Amino acid sequence: MKRGLFISIEGPDGSGKSTQIRLLKEYLSKNGRQAILTREPGGTIISEKIREIILDKKYIEMDPMTEALLYAASRCQHVAEVIKPALEEGKTVICDRFVDSSIAYQGYGRQLGEAVRIINEYAVAGCMPDITFLLKVEPSVGKKRIREEEQDRLEKEKLEFHNAVFTGYLELEKLYKDRIIGIDASKGIDEISNEIILQIQNFIEG
Amino acid sequence: MKRGLFISIEGPDGSGKSTQIRLLKEYLSKNGRQAILTREPGGTIISEKIREIILDKKYIEMDPMTEALLYAASRCQHVAEVIKPALEEGKTVICDRFVDSSIAYQGYGRQLGEAVRIINEYAVAGCMPDITFLLKVEPSVGKKRIREEEQDRLEKEKLEFHNAVFTGYLELEKLYKDRIIGIDASKGIDEISNEIILQIQNFIEG
Repeated sequence: MKRGLFISIEGPDGSGKSTQIRLLKEYLSKNGRQAILTREPGGTIISEKIREIILDKKYIEMDPMTEALLYAASRCQHVAEVIKPALEEGKTVICDRFVDSSIAYQGYGRQLGEAVRIINEYAVAGCMPDITFLLKVEPSVGKKRIREEEQDRLEKEKLEFHNAVFTGYLELEKLYKDRIIGIDASKGIDEISNEIILQIQNFIEG
Repeated sequence: MKRGLFISIEGPDGSGKSTQIRLLKEYLSKNGRQAILTREPGGTIISEKIREIILDKKYIEMDPMTEALLYAASRCQHVAEVIKPALEEGKTVICDRFVDSSIAYQGYGRQLGEAVRIINEYAVAGCMPDITFLLKVEPSVGKKRIREEEQDRLEKEKLEFHNAVFTGYLELEKLYKDRIIGIDASKGIDEISNEIILQIQNFIEG
């Protein structure tokens, strides 16, 4: 049996990922493709247990690299238990965020660099998306309602962090031209959806 | 302040590590060196939480690479919270098993190979032992009381696993000659202890 199609959707929070994923899933099911929608921790018990540790706010002493290794461990199990078996059954898998999120947020945002990419290469063991849609929205757009003089030190740091994440995404888009398709997320919902569907059609037919 | 001395003790179970660690700690304290003794998860809450996941027997679906990433995450936190701060305060740290255990057990035993070494390089961030004692005992020695015909399939597999681990240790000894000191663990307790102490004296004075 032919391996299923693996699609990931990436982009900053507020870039409209959820809406686009829903529309893409609707399109695929209308066209007779069984698509499973997944996001980390992906419903695996082990990944959920790992996530509980990562997201527990009382662990302020957590080293950034510990966090990166835990995210990779959670992803590794998600791939082994959910994504890989589904693809092997010929199913289409749509994943809300995947490896690129880790590289953008932890590699660039938290400045862990190349380490994040390499650790995640081991975690996914070659199971990478065939096609990734990157919904691009400037971080400042999300911030524009807060006036500069009203921002405290932390909020400024946050914007710097989100700018670094966005820079990371743009560099990934350049590095993995064949896989990552950048989309201007300031466009209308239907326009973006049509663009995504067209790309999927091209990919399937091509 | 001068960074403290970082010592790790390695070897298969039953090689006498605990006894030697106790004797070494006694020697050091008699000679006015404050030594802390640690073993993973090293008393950090985060590392303990990670270990609970690794050691929970009900997670039979755990991918070997998930396990390797979790061990590395646990170690990363142990280094950041316990080992590094102690060394920076000039304390001597004796660690019961460290990176070499992961490489031997997971890299060789579970055949994850080079990945384990690389992941752990990120986990320890350069904080490696100055000197490692490898207590060498043939895996078959521990098995010698079970006669061949009484071993079931699983026990034979286990011996194969432990042989692979031991091979891993021996290769590490060759690769890291400057750091790893192999010791014949079939010798008497006092003889081994004297050998370890002599090596430590040479290291401190040299």
